[in-house]
Amino acid sequence: MSTSLCIFDTTLRDGTQGEGISLTAEDKVKIALKLDALGVHYIEGGNPGSNSKDIEFFRRIRELNLRAKLTAFGSTRRKNIACEQDANLKHLTESGASAATLVGKTWDFHVHTALQTTLEENLAMIHESLAYVRSKGMEALFDAEHFFDGYKANPEYALAALAKAKEAGTEWIVLCDTNGGTLPSEIHEIVSRVRSVIDAPIGIHTHNDCEMAVANAIAAVSAGARQIQGTINGYGERCGNANLCSIIPTLQLKMGYDCVSDEQLTTLTSVARYVSEIANVILPVNQPYVGNAAFAHKGGIHVSAIMKDSKTYEHISPALVGNKQRVLVSELAGQSNILSKAQELGLDVGAEGLKSRNVIDRIKELEHQGYQFEGADASLELLLRDAYGDTVDIFTVETFKIIVEKTANGMVSEAIVKINIGGEQVYTVAEGNGPVNALDNALRKALSQFYPGIHDIHLTDYKVRVLNEKDATAAKVRVLVESTDFKDSWNTVGVSTNVIEASWEALVDSIRYALLGMVKRDVSPQAPRESYGWVNH
Amino acid sequence: MSTSLCIFDTTLRDGTQGEGISLTAEDKVKIALKLDALGVHYIEGGNPGSNSKDIEFFRRIRELNLRAKLTAFGSTRRKNIACEQDANLKHLTESGASAATLVGKTWDFHVHTALQTTLEENLAMIHESLAYVRSKGMEALFDAEHFFDGYKANPEYALAALAKAKEAGTEWIVLCDTNGGTLPSEIHEIVSRVRSVIDAPIGIHTHNDCEMAVANAIAAVSAGARQIQGTINGYGERCGNANLCSIIPTLQLKMGYDCVSDEQLTTLTSVARYVSEIANVILPVNQPYVGNAAFAHKGGIHVSAIMKDSKTYEHISPALVGNKQRVLVSELAGQSNILSKAQELGLDVGAEGLKSRNVIDRIKELEHQGYQFEGADASLELLLRDAYGDTVDIFTVETFKIIVEKTANGMVSEAIVKINIGGEQVYTVAEGNGPVNALDNALRKALSQFYPGIHDIHLTDYKVRVLNEKDATAAKVRVLVESTDFKDSWNTVGVSTNVIEASWEALVDSIRYALLGMVKRDVSPQAPRESYGWVNH
Repeated sequence: MSTSLCIFDTTLRDGTQGEGISLTAEDKVKIALKLDALGVHYIEGGNPGSNSKDIEFFRRIRELNLRAKLTAFGSTRRKNIACEQDANLKHLTESGASAATLVGKTWDFHVHTALQTTLEENLAMIHESLAYVRSKGMEALFDAEHFFDGYKANPEYALAALAKAKEAGTEWIVLCDTNGGTLPSEIHEIVSRVRSVIDAPIGIHTHNDCEMAVANAIAAVSAGARQIQGTINGYGERCGNANLCSIIPTLQLKMGYDCVSDEQLTTLTSVARYVSEIANVILPVNQPYVGNAAFAHKGGIHVSAIMKDSKTYEHISPALVGNKQRVLVSELAGQSNILSKAQELGLDVGAEGLKSRNVIDRIKELEHQGYQFEGADASLELLLRDAYGDTVDIFTVETFKIIVEKTANGMVSEAIVKINIGGEQVYTVAEGNGPVNALDNALRKALSQFYPGIHDIHLTDYKVRVLNEKDATAAKVRVLVESTDFKDSWNTVGVSTNVIEASWEALVDSIRYALLGMVKRDVSPQAPRESYGWVNH
Repeated sequence: MSTSLCIFDTTLRDGTQGEGISLTAEDKVKIALKLDALGVHYIEGGNPGSNSKDIEFFRRIRELNLRAKLTAFGSTRRKNIACEQDANLKHLTESGASAATLVGKTWDFHVHTALQTTLEENLAMIHESLAYVRSKGMEALFDAEHFFDGYKANPEYALAALAKAKEAGTEWIVLCDTNGGTLPSEIHEIVSRVRSVIDAPIGIHTHNDCEMAVANAIAAVSAGARQIQGTINGYGERCGNANLCSIIPTLQLKMGYDCVSDEQLTTLTSVARYVSEIANVILPVNQPYVGNAAFAHKGGIHVSAIMKDSKTYEHISPALVGNKQRVLVSELAGQSNILSKAQELGLDVGAEGLKSRNVIDRIKELEHQGYQFEGADASLELLLRDAYGDTVDIFTVETFKIIVEKTANGMVSEAIVKINIGGEQVYTVAEGNGPVNALDNALRKALSQFYPGIHDIHLTDYKVRVLNEKDATAAKVRVLVESTDFKDSWNTVGVSTNVIEASWEALVDSIRYALLGMVKRDVSPQAPRESYGWVNH
């Protein structure tokens, strides 16, 4: 029987303290759903006392009935008032979260300098605040801020603070290395000391200021901590929080603890990448376990050894965390994946070995240029169908032109497109909120004469990623577009040094995919005019 | 008396195994000079047996008489031949380096699987190769590859390999966690065991596959290792090597060891940033000790506390490693962040309470629109200086126009700008790789007639973030631009539904900031013409 550990995710609260991380309520809901599927036990959603966005998040998430416990974060009450008078505690207890994490001071220096109150009043703040949230029916967790610094400075006071939390009936006492300056050997020793005097479930919350947040969390578990607080990809204030994407697999695969199921663990890489996409932060290529280079081999000796046995240069099998091996000298674009995709589309690949290889070479070349088909299924499908002759021409673009002008009266964006639809040249112009929106409008205007059903298609998502940022405004960008026809949604991609061209590519793919699908599946609200289009070909 | 430790840098060898890292011989010379000034004791320059670029590096570096020892890397001889017949050992001994680091197998599994030879032959390869390089007058270091995995699988054999190295007179025996899968507690235990049976100076070489390379190196030092191998910024194969930029300050500031002088330690941040520039890899903003956000404060409670005493949320004084404190302005923060920023700029806010409040309202309004100033210090500075009347007009934009055209021959992007510089209207046109690059080129072309120093400013980073993605192509975007003049770098922001307008805002802020700074600090390579500009106002 292995020991079960409790994983507490604070990506949505402490993670947003990281520089450059800003999440909308909608972003938070999306991430919470992924965290829940990953199997974390607590999701700290935000600080309802500090901003209204978090109140909205808690309102929306309640309806989704997650398996994980939702926890709202706040401070112990302000000094010299009653809990009932504290506006932050009010917001917190009204948030609808089933648990409350209250942070309080345990370092005497902070009580004097930051709070500017007495040691006694701080103890009362801890006790009363925790008891208050419990009286409102919430589970209470105590985040013992700066506990390790506090313990080193004044162990009696730091432990007295924990005792007050315990006395209030707090379910978890979480020891925080808030400034991130503590070493693993100190963590191990202090957690052991705490366990010998405080009989309560202990959690650990570490920061990465010495690049040891993960090692510190592991050291605390070895000393008996049973809850680990951290964030996806280690997002957080200054140098970040403990990275759950490294902690979970290390505890589970190397130390034999139970955190999530083996199947949930295989989703770790996709969760890490999903959260980085939503947060719009590039996932470091060398991030342990989940990075694109985590199992990538460059050295010639390494490559020849892993071909004999991958264990020679891999500490775990990458599939256990949903990642994969890559050989950098000759990129293997996963031939089997592409073949299985083609088969799924009903393309006859049996006797087409050579042709399949051409598609793979083409995909590798496009990926090298910066295309990414993992998030652009529809572009991949078009590419495969084109390669196997399973598409027809609906329209071809002859030229387009964008004019964006800043005048004294504001910005004007105009797009002119000349396209050929079933042999007929159509020339349209449209305005938009910006150049890409103008292009989109002009393209739809041209096509709607032939395919009125295009009115049911609309774009739901538009993402721009700069690929080689060091080239600044001459850098390549990747545009991802998501579209829907109210029944299905699909994703397309475009890449160029020119943001307009990349957007155009993704737009054209999206509409081409829709028109092909609409007619094929005969789901178009109105079929194209008989005399035009490819249906008669 | 504190214990001295030996720092062994392998940025130029193992660091270049990292994905995306490629250094020319010239790059390597530049980096070696910085490492030498930082005070590292060994610089591993490369593998002269594997590529001619490294032979050139060793030829050139010899003439520069570094204080650090130069070491060349190679493997023990190939199986079943004499050292004299081994071409790699020949290149290595002819490199001119004063020390040789030879990597050899200590894990029986690798001897069988990768080398495909006998355990006895591998021991002979270790002994003979090390004795051979020593016979050529070089100092010898033995990199015991996969030592920890080897020790766990077959401790007798792993220790026998070390004993052979010791017998050959090897100066340092370096224990390598090549696959990066070992935990700190295991490292501590195994290093202690080695020290009890092998009487030789021990080094440690760790990899970051569990995000514990730094903790593992520290654990080895606690167990008696006296040489630490690592790289600047942790560059290296897969998830990287142990990061010297985190290890050196931790050993020196927190554990009392001597690595480099206190003065050299204050250059750490600039060395980290210099190496990242040369390697053309963006330094993670949250990198411990040296990252731009390592001492950046975002939460309002944190900010008000650090204004009372920075020790409240900083584990060390940032100046000790040449870094500095920053206060991020964001929706999470309150007035204290902005006031401290204004004070840092030397603006007189004392009697201007109301005015300060206006600035805060303005910033909140802009943040609500999607601006984010925590990544755009220069835009915030302009906003504050404008509010306090501490800027002057350098140029005003009257109109601009962008034309992007897709023709049969490809894409053409053209920008036309009409700006007013000190009363004179300038009207220019330029092409670019895309619309934003064309705008940038046209703006510079106009200004360079008046401010030739603008040639020294260039953009180093360009980011686009779609804010309300659900609005698809009509969504708002935020553009962040980073610029440098080779001395400093600064960041600016623009927001609009029109990607061109948002980029334009950020570009104009960037150049305005630079021109204000250039003239104010009188560092412009050539001052503006007397008759124009604001210097006479």
